[in-house]
Formats: sequence, C-alpha cells, structure tokens
Amino acid sequence: MANRETDNSEVTPWTVEGEVDYDRLVSQFGTRYIDDQILEYFKKLTGEVSFFVRRGFFFSHRDLDWIFKKYERGERFYLYTGRGPSGRVHIGHLLPWYFTKYLQDKFKAQLLFQVTDDEKYLYRDELTLQGVREMTDDNLLDIIAVGFDARRTQILIDTRGIHELYPISIKVAKAITLSTVKAVFGFEDSTNIGMTFFPSVQAAPSFLYSEKLGRPVPCLIPAAIDQDNFWRMTRDVADKLGYYKPAQVHSKFLPALNKEGKMSSSLPETAVYTTDKPKDVERKIKNAFTGGQPTVEEQRKKGGNPQICPVFWYEQYFFEKDDRRLEEIRQSCLTGRLLCGEHKISLVTKVKDFLEDFQRKREQARTKVNEFLYDPDRQVVL
Amino acid sequence: MANRETDNSEVTPWTVEGEVDYDRLVSQFGTRYIDDQILEYFKKLTGEVSFFVRRGFFFSHRDLDWIFKKYERGERFYLYTGRGPSGRVHIGHLLPWYFTKYLQDKFKAQLLFQVTDDEKYLYRDELTLQGVREMTDDNLLDIIAVGFDARRTQILIDTRGIHELYPISIKVAKAITLSTVKAVFGFEDSTNIGMTFFPSVQAAPSFLYSEKLGRPVPCLIPAAIDQDNFWRMTRDVADKLGYYKPAQVHSKFLPALNKEGKMSSSLPETAVYTTDKPKDVERKIKNAFTGGQPTVEEQRKKGGNPQICPVFWYEQYFFEKDDRRLEEIRQSCLTGRLLCGEHKISLVTKVKDFLEDFQRKREQARTKVNEFLYDPDRQVVL
Repeated sequence: MANRETDNSEVTPWTVEGEVDYDRLVSQFGTRYIDDQILEYFKKLTGEVSFFVRRGFFFSHRDLDWIFKKYERGERFYLYTGRGPSGRVHIGHLLPWYFTKYLQDKFKAQLLFQVTDDEKYLYRDELTLQGVREMTDDNLLDIIAVGFDARRTQILIDTRGIHELYPISIKVAKAITLSTVKAVFGFEDSTNIGMTFFPSVQAAPSFLYSEKLGRPVPCLIPAAIDQDNFWRMTRDVADKLGYYKPAQVHSKFLPALNKEGKMSSSLPETAVYTTDKPKDVERKIKNAFTGGQPTVEEQRKKGGNPQICPVFWYEQYFFEKDDRRLEEIRQSCLTGRLLCGEHKISLVTKVKDFLEDFQRKREQARTKVNEFLYDPDRQVVL
Repeated sequence: MANRETDNSEVTPWTVEGEVDYDRLVSQFGTRYIDDQILEYFKKLTGEVSFFVRRGFFFSHRDLDWIFKKYERGERFYLYTGRGPSGRVHIGHLLPWYFTKYLQDKFKAQLLFQVTDDEKYLYRDELTLQGVREMTDDNLLDIIAVGFDARRTQILIDTRGIHELYPISIKVAKAITLSTVKAVFGFEDSTNIGMTFFPSVQAAPSFLYSEKLGRPVPCLIPAAIDQDNFWRMTRDVADKLGYYKPAQVHSKFLPALNKEGKMSSSLPETAVYTTDKPKDVERKIKNAFTGGQPTVEEQRKKGGNPQICPVFWYEQYFFEKDDRRLEEIRQSCLTGRLLCGEHKISLVTKVKDFLEDFQRKREQARTKVNEFLYDPDRQVVL
C-alpha cells in the first residue's frame, strides 16, 4: 500500500499498523497542523476550544481557516463523516463522531454521515452482502447513540442511497484514471473493479449538497487521518467539477490497549467495544499496557511515563474532560504517587459509567433509525 | 482494444470499423452459429423461424438451446437488451429491438431494457450528464415506438435505477479484477475508474430478476455481437454468484450505406435515422454505395452483386419481409433486370412508409414513458 513508512508503521484507509508517526503523515500527506490561528478562530466562533483539539487528538487540517472565514461571512458549511461498518464499534471509532457532534452543536451544522457498506463488502473476501447489512444495522445504533441532532443529520448507507451518490460518483470517476488510484491507494491489477471505483463513491458526499442546492456549498470532513488519501483525490477533482474542495480536520487514532497501532476489531482485547459488559471492561483495562514501572517500589521511586501509556491516553483523549484533573493525574503518575493498578481501577469506573449511559442510548436508538436515514426529499437548510 | 483483427476490422463494444469478419468473431469470442437444431426449436416453440434468423441477421448464440429446453419444461426466461443513448437512433439500432419484440411476443417474455447513460457519459469526454439525459429522454421514444408490451417491459436507465443494480454490480465487481477487464476490454491505466467499473453495471440486469425472485431465472440477451465482451465476462462470474449464465443471441450490424463498418452517428449520411425527413431518406439512399455496375449498359449485361450491396441488405435484413419478393429482387439484380437507381427508388418508398408509421408511434410514445420506466415495486411474473 502507498503509505508504508520507513519506520515500519503503515497508515492507509485499510490498515493502521505499528506506532504511528503523525509528523511524518502531516508532511507526507501535505496537511497542516492546527496552529494558533485555528485555535483563535475556534475561540472567536464558538467561545472555546474543544478538548479534542486542545489536547491534540484532532491535530491536523486542510482549509479549516477557509471554512471559518466563510462561516464568519455568513456562509454555512456542512459536516461529512463516515463509517465502514464492522462487527463491533469500539471507543476509538466513537471519538471522531463525538467531535463531529460537537461541531454540529457549535455551528448548527448539517451532517451527512456515510456508511460505506459497499466498500466493506468489496474489501473483505469473506463477507456477504447480507452479513454487511446486519453489521450496518447494528452500527447505526452506535452512530445514533452519539446524540447527533436528528433534524440536522442524514445517514446515507451506500447500497441504499446509491441513487443519490451515483451521478456524482461518475462525474468524479470520469476525472480519475486507474493510474491515479493505483498511485494514491496502492491498488494493483489484482484489485477488484469495485474497489478501484469506490474512491469516487466516498468522494461523492463531499459534493452532494452542492448538487442538491445547485451551488457550491462548503463541506468539512472530520475523520481520522487514515482516510486522507480519499480527500486528497477528492480535492484534486473538485475544481474541475465546479465544486469547492472539501476541508478536513484530522484526528489521531486512540491507540490500542496493548499499545500497538490503533484498536482493532480483529484483536478484541485491544479495544473497548460499545457493547462490552462491565466485566469485559475490567478485564481489558486491567490487562492493558501502561507507562508504569515493573514493580510498585520502582513506580513509587521513578514514577511512570504517561506519554506512552494507553491508560493515560484514554483519560486525555476522552474520559477526563477536566483539564485540571487531567493534569493532577499526569503529575501523580510522573511522581509515582499514582500506581498503574489504582489508575486502571479509576479508569474502569469512568469507562463503565460511560458505557452504561451509551448502551441505554444505543437501545433507545432502535426506535429512531428512520428519523436519521437519508431522505432525498428532505429539505436541507444550508 | 482487445479485438483488433488482423484483417483491419475492429469490433469492440465501443468501435466497429472496417468490414466485419463474422466467422472470425464467432471463433474468437467462442460463440456458436445458429444451426439446424436451433431452427428446429424455433419452429417447434413458435411455429416459425423469424426472418431475422432465417436470413442470418441473428446468426450466433450461446445457450439458446439451453434456454429453449428450459422453456419446453415450463421454465420461463426473460429478455434483456439495452441501449447506449446517443444523439439519434438509426435503423441499425432498431433491428435487434424488433427481434427482441418478436421474441417477447412469441414467448410472452418479460423484457428488461437497460439504458446505459452512465457508460455513455463516462466514455465520451465531451458529454455532460445533462446532455446524456436529454439524449436518453429522446431515445426512450424510439425504444417505446418499437411496440414492446408495456405490461411486460421495464426500461431501466442506469443513473435513475442504479439502486436496483448496484448491490448486484458490487457482487459482480468483487469477482472481477482489473487484469480481467484490461484483457477483455482493452482498458489501460489511463482509463477512467468509471469505465473499468461499468462492466459490472452492464452485467447486473442479467441477474436482476433472479435477485428479486430469490431463485435463478434464465435470461436471454438479444444484442449485436459487439457487446459480447460483456457477456463473456458476465458468464464467467455467474456460477460463482449462484446465478444462471445468461444466454445470448447475436446479431450482425446493418452495414453503413457507404459500406464501411456499421452505421455511425458521427457520419450521418451513412445511416437513416428514425427522425429523418423524407428528403433525407431520399438523399441518403440515392447516394448509397451499391453492388451494381458503373454504367446502365454494364448492369444490364453483367448484373449487380447483392452480396455486397447496402441497398439489398436493407431489404434482406428488414424492409422486405416476404421471402419470395426478396428472391425476385435478388434475381432481378443478379440478371441486370433491376437497375440500382430503380432499386433505390423502391427502397426509398419502403423506408419512407416505415418512418412515417414509426414517427407517428414515436410521437405517441411521449405520453407512455411512465408506463415503461422501471418500477421496483412492480410484480414481475416469471
């Protein structure tokens, strides 16, 4: 695949392996770090800076300043993000969605949420369409449980909403050669012809509301940085097709509990799933890798290293929203006041509380699915 | 492209150039000639053999015997054919449709008629989607004017009916690599990613009714032989996906009035269009190439050669349905009793009469379009 790193990590839309070097990705993908100017914009437009941004989980962007400038002048943007359905959703998947919800709330923004069931089917040999359909229906509950505003959110499942996307997809596809997708995505002649077409299906939502409204509408894509190949390609054709280039804001990955790469559905002990039971949460977090010392004595003496600690990352990126308390945890860890076992118990409680609430919302979501599904006749205010 | 011939003719789904060597195509594509067994089947099942078959316009097939055997045992098949919309429909386009209507009438068969507006857009650089839409709406009138049975016909326009095709298309696409479509269709790395996906969209109608009815349903595709690449590929994946291989019956091309290749929309004088005025018909046929001699004297002495004569082909393949009268024309021509000028005048009258009737039906079609458009909720009896 295209983005294999010399440091042995690999980040593509289908694989994230090894310890990710985000500096390298920013330079390789040609994105920009979120800087003071962007932080100022956030403060000015929303009165604050989300902890997701402040703590560097969302760390990179393209044209966020441009989107904000448009917004300041009264031009509204919409949000577009997505989900490749899989067996189970884990907390790492949720984080970009919570930030998307945050942006939706702050900017009163329309959200187009694409579920790429077609790609999942095309990519994974062993999957049937029926199998993907079941995963999709299940994953919808997770998406809805995040709490998006039903009046401002449309979930578009590719195989069910393709009539909306296809005319745009073929416009995009006409402008992109096999050479390009081979270079961008690492496709080869042994790749199936669905996968090589799919980038045009993932590009389409960036332009969908522009098509519907008959004028270019700014679009902001919050997503993990592994999806960036799609957006580089999409931006390259936007001008030619008379649309705005979609802007992006990129997140890191919530690392695996065992510290290798991002959490993985194929390694269930490395991630906390939204449907995990309290005993699963306890076991997984208790078995997690930490930045602590091998013995209590050493920990008391030398302190731990929160910078390499998944337990601390869980706090930093999601579970401890209060900056002062987070700093207390960090200091206690560094000085050895906090033992890893104690820290794990405290995180287990936070995660269990979160999941109890989330799972209740997830059950309630069963009756709300139709409110969220893409309806071509619904008026979109932009 | 893949099927370039050593004799300088070229037959692909997008180009037919030079004098077509049909024997070579049959051997190259691995199809079978329509033989006595097939003719016997036609007689047994329909009481006759259509002049389209008798006179060799439909000349080749795959699994027609299999379809007939199924039919004999009470298993109904459906017909599938299609149209890549273009500026204007000419008589060469109509012939396979008239044979399709004939089959529909004789076998009381359901017909799925695909309009590949997506492919036309993807293939032709200069076309816009709106331009293709206008051509499509116009071409629909020609399709309907042929007289298909509205209760048994569904016209599926790709960009408007894609939600029906896409789930099947991705099943097909998953089973086909870039290598395969490069080999079959001559695609290259400079080909756009829409074109390389499209074969799976053209394959999908072969399986659509099987998908809808939840059991394999036999499908027979009457079409010109230049489309065969699509069916070879489609047949290759059918088993794997649990469908029947679609059967085909292949036509030749009605040659151009100037004798080079099939009629061409880009060379308007080589073809009679369905919207031509009487004076256009007169001019085009009067200027046609013939198999006659350079002077009247020589024609009277040596006679003409109907075998290489577009004027005679028009009679043979469509305009003279009566075998005895056709043989009289042939003999008059061979013996020099009939001069080319006289023959042209007689053909002009037949073509004008045909077009007068066709154009009336074409106007009436404007109010019937909705009866024919694909309706996913319509019950298909098979």
